[in-house]
Order: sequence, then structure tokens, then C-alpha cells
Amino acid sequence: MTENENNQDVRVVRIEENVLASNDQQAKKNRDELSSLGIRTVNLISSPGTGKTTLLVETLKRIKDTLRVGVIEGDQQTSNDARRIAETGVPVVQINTQQSCHLSALQVWRCFEHLPLAALDVLIIENVGNLICPSGFDLGEDQKIALLSITEGEDKPLKYPLLFHLASVVVLTKLDLLPHLRFDLEKCRQNIRQINPDVRIIETSVFDGTGMAEWINFIEYNEGIKGKK
Amino acid sequence: MTENENNQDVRVVRIEENVLASNDQQAKKNRDELSSLGIRTVNLISSPGTGKTTLLVETLKRIKDTLRVGVIEGDQQTSNDARRIAETGVPVVQINTQQSCHLSALQVWRCFEHLPLAALDVLIIENVGNLICPSGFDLGEDQKIALLSITEGEDKPLKYPLLFHLASVVVLTKLDLLPHLRFDLEKCRQNIRQINPDVRIIETSVFDGTGMAEWINFIEYNEGIKGKK
Repeated sequence: MTENENNQDVRVVRIEENVLASNDQQAKKNRDELSSLGIRTVNLISSPGTGKTTLLVETLKRIKDTLRVGVIEGDQQTSNDARRIAETGVPVVQINTQQSCHLSALQVWRCFEHLPLAALDVLIIENVGNLICPSGFDLGEDQKIALLSITEGEDKPLKYPLLFHLASVVVLTKLDLLPHLRFDLEKCRQNIRQINPDVRIIETSVFDGTGMAEWINFIEYNEGIKGKK
Repeated sequence: MTENENNQDVRVVRIEENVLASNDQQAKKNRDELSSLGIRTVNLISSPGTGKTTLLVETLKRIKDTLRVGVIEGDQQTSNDARRIAETGVPVVQINTQQSCHLSALQVWRCFEHLPLAALDVLIIENVGNLICPSGFDLGEDQKIALLSITEGEDKPLKYPLLFHLASVVVLTKLDLLPHLRFDLEKCRQNIRQINPDVRIIETSVFDGTGMAEWINFIEYNEGIKGKK
């Protein structure tokens, strides 16, 4: 959907020229602001139900005493996820995108005044659940992180390649379900590497702890994410 | 994403006025054509990995001797799914949408010449894997069918309500995994009914056969879908 369809009754799409160019310009502004404050920013992208929020809540519990983290939550509707994040004690802002299928750089910018940016080391943005559209919209993040649940099937990186092409890390989730699925893990790894040969793949399960140390280590130390504390 | 982003290097979005109005017009043309030929059409919509193709392949095996079925497959890339469908002996056309996140009525129209329409009872369209964008684009179908895998979590109807609002049937998939998940089935049913009080919910598993008779019965007989044979 375009960003211009405000409700399902709209039948004539209002035109904004240069939607992506305008988004890129704002994303640069976001990136400059975040960079000037020494904040490392990651943008979590996946289908609905991959387990972004569940992984995020567990991650926050583990890192919040060593890193100062803020979260921006994107959903079409509801603030359920922001409530789950808030229970960890981490500052969080919920964006409800309504009909829009992805976060935009401007929406993220508007969250900045509601977060204690000057006191943050890391900003984690959880995008709207969508394997496709969020990939095209730069939010000013340092890294896009693709999540893929093993319940979704090993073919998804080939069918929806853009995100896997752009991601610096692919996190596989729900590894605890492997014995119950017809899922070829090695084939999945090959499919990811076919799209992005050098991408790092971290295989996780929040419930049995698989790969969580590696994931937490990545969030804490990767590419200059260092605590200000 | 808008329909106009042909590749990731495009930074200036070409403008098409009235995208939705134009789509609606084409959808009406599709619907008139299909209706005049006595074809009932369903549009399957869900996240990537919900199991649309797996359910579809099993469905085709069961109905192809009593109904003449054609399939239109939508994916951003690959024709893997069309190959899986073709193995059942059912005529199928694959649409690769590239950067676009949903099928359009015009894409569906262009498939008509590649299908034996005059000899079909039912046309099943499998949309691009996306819980959001395909809902806004009428393809000329008689019914939208929403699929939701129980691995995706019971909250998804509330977070992405448009599809569940528009669907005449919600098919829950992967019920065989229920013992291995933290998934509240009754809560999921409530969430669906909160969005769409009267919608029919069919709970299925291709692997253990749960609900398949009900689903097949729906496809074969619901709302006038009757074989010409």
C-alpha cells in the first residue's frame, strides 16, 4: 500500500512526489542525529509472528543493566507490544501506522522527543510485521536485522530477497520447534547465503536459550555498539 | 511500497494517479469476466510462511477430480510455488511481482489468457505473502480468505485488522503444532471475532488432517461454488 491510503474508503490516492527521496532525506537527518549522540541503531524486520517482540523483551532483560537502550515499536494498531517492552523498564514509544505497512523515517524522527536520546547507547526499532515493504524505507539505522522463524519455511529468503540482501545479520528464531517441523535448516542457510553470501546468521530460541549468548554478544559489541555507562 | 518502485535504486517515484480507483475498475472487469463464465474465485491472503501453498497443494489433490480448478500464484520472485501446484496437474500461472508487495487486478487479468477459463469452475489466487498490503487491492475475487498460522501468535488479528475485517473465512493453519506452542487458541478465536464477529473460522492441519474435511467442503460447496462437471 502507498503511504497515502489513510482508510479503506479512500479511492483516489493523493500524490506525494518523491516519497522515497523524501524518506531518504529524513533518514539521513535521523542518522546524523543518532550518530552525533553516539547511539547505535538497529531496525528489526520480519513477517508478523516471527517473534520480534519476544526476542526483544528477552534481549532487554539481559542487556538493560549494561547498556542504556530505547525502543521504538511499530504496529498497524494496538500498543500491546509497547506494554510488553515497558514492563522491562526500558523507555519505549509506540507508533501505530494504521493502514501503512512499514515505518517511515519521519515517524521515527517524531519519536525522538519522547525518548531520552542523550542518555541512550542503543536504539532498537521494531518495524511493522512485514517481510517486504519495510526493507525499502531507510529509517536512519546503522543496521537492518532480518528475523525469520523456522516455522515460515526455508524458501522465504529466495521468495522475498530484498530484506535478506540488505540485512547485516539474519536471526533465525524458534529453533526449539525444529524437531516438530519439516524444515531443512541447512537448506535455509544456503538460501540465505545465495542472496547474501557473507551475512551473519544467528540461530536462536528464546525458550530453550539456543544462540542467545551469541545474539546478546552481537547487540552488545557489534560494530561499535558500546555502552556509555 | 508503492507499485512504482521498480528496483531499489529508484529514488524518484513515478506517479500514477488513482492507483486504487484504477485497480477497482480493473477488478470489476475481472469480476464480470469470471462471473460471466460461472467461475467462483477466492483470494488467499496471509503472512509469508503461513502455509498457503501447502494447504493449496493438498486441497487441489482432493478437489481436482470433482471441480475444474485453476490457480494464479503470486510471489515477489521464484516460481517454486507454481511448480508445486503444477505437479498436481492443475493449470497454474505464476506472477512475479518483483518489488511489489501485493497482486493487482491488472496482473490477474493478464493471467486470464494463459488459463483455460472457459473450462474452470473455481479460480484460486494465492497472493504475495503479506498480511497487510494485499487486503487493499481487490482482484475481482468473490471472497478473500485470510490464513493465520498458530505459530504467528493469537494477537495478529488485532495488530493487522484490515484483512480479518474483510475476510469471509479465516483459516487457522498448523494446528498440529499446538502442543508445542504457547498459543491460546480460544483467545485467538476471540481476537478474530472482535474484528469480524460473524466470520467463519476453520481450524486446519495439513499434516494430521484436522479440519481438512470442513475446509474442502467449504471450497467445494460454499456460496454457490459448484462443479460444472
